[in-house]
Amino acid sequence: MHLFYDPLITKNITEYVLPEDESKHIVRVLRLKEGDKVGVLDGKGRVYSGEIISSDPKKCRLKIINIDLESESDYSIHIAIAPTKLMERMEWFVEKATELGVTEITLLQSKNSERIKVREDRLVKKAVSALKQSKRTFLPKINSIVTVEQFIKMYPSGLIAHCYEGEKSSIMTEFNLKNCPMLIGPEGDFSPDEVQFALKSGYKSISLGKNRLRTETAALYACMQAVMKTEHL
Amino acid sequence: MHLFYDPLITKNITEYVLPEDESKHIVRVLRLKEGDKVGVLDGKGRVYSGEIISSDPKKCRLKIINIDLESESDYSIHIAIAPTKLMERMEWFVEKATELGVTEITLLQSKNSERIKVREDRLVKKAVSALKQSKRTFLPKINSIVTVEQFIKMYPSGLIAHCYEGEKSSIMTEFNLKNCPMLIGPEGDFSPDEVQFALKSGYKSISLGKNRLRTETAALYACMQAVMKTEHL
Repeated sequence: MHLFYDPLITKNITEYVLPEDESKHIVRVLRLKEGDKVGVLDGKGRVYSGEIISSDPKKCRLKIINIDLESESDYSIHIAIAPTKLMERMEWFVEKATELGVTEITLLQSKNSERIKVREDRLVKKAVSALKQSKRTFLPKINSIVTVEQFIKMYPSGLIAHCYEGEKSSIMTEFNLKNCPMLIGPEGDFSPDEVQFALKSGYKSISLGKNRLRTETAALYACMQAVMKTEHL
Repeated sequence: MHLFYDPLITKNITEYVLPEDESKHIVRVLRLKEGDKVGVLDGKGRVYSGEIISSDPKKCRLKIINIDLESESDYSIHIAIAPTKLMERMEWFVEKATELGVTEITLLQSKNSERIKVREDRLVKKAVSALKQSKRTFLPKINSIVTVEQFIKMYPSGLIAHCYEGEKSSIMTEFNLKNCPMLIGPEGDFSPDEVQFALKSGYKSISLGKNRLRTETAALYACMQAVMKTEHL
């Protein structure tokens, strides 16, 4: 079943008209016709299954025949990451994190950040496409860039990955299933002040192992470990 | 220190001439001069540290001042993967797997493969660039495409990830640090025959969790779990 995404689709709907670009895609590219099934995701757990009742390439109309609601998971995985210099590496990260079921991504501005302007719309687009591809129902929330200090004030405890000396734990032992954001620094690492600020606030230092990983690889590695923990692997 | 890769550099060398393209890069782009330090990786554990003694943009000459040899790790991580339709997804996988220290990647031809021709030179190039970036010393071996049956005859036991019913374990419990290749199928999964052939030979079925992952994400997830096991995280 082909899936579309519309965050504004309303709950008790019986008929639905797809936007013009999606209507054109359905009728001209996918060549779907009256009677064919199509799904609409709201990104908040609902899947609206519909049947095409008018294959108009400008206003394709669906009759909603079923609404599935997936209940929210009992965990949250929140990654706060300093954007990489190359935007495509961030897009790649967002795609993979969405496939894996990450719930929230916050962009971080660190003292050593190489990039502080990010086109969030491009990241959301990547997340939407990964959502459809992986048949997930919850779109990760992507939060605008904030400084490391601002983030820590909002979320006073969690885990921070860095390369400075000191006692470190692993995600597998320290990750909590709720309210445990994981901070991943820029290519030049967090500044010593940023790490101190986090530790004083209540963060724990984590190690991501012996490998020297790129920012986006480190973030994905952290995600995967958190996912493993939620699945008790 | 800028790193270069030359698999043919010989052991007891005292002077080394960089190839023309690398010489040009060093002299014209990086603007390195006599006395500057440069490293050469052989991809088999050796790092040759040299000092430029002639910054000729066609034949940049180094005096080798030190050779470090990293001993081979006591584990091997071997991923056998059916190539994805989009080549860039395979390249991405090779890059990330190299960063993480995977030792061997074999390309698999499955009944459901969407691609059976792969430009291995492009994959090797990605691996070399990730090797330099992540300061690793062992280049993963990338093996030409073989059918699933051929692979299983060469490696009669290991782990196979698939979506069919049946008893499944996790990588964290089943992965052995030696001789334990992990098979990752194409987008349409392995065929039932291929899975049966593997199980009869001595493979164990593994699950990669509840998420519906793309081939390259599944392969990276498997890698990361194996890396965690080698690091006792």
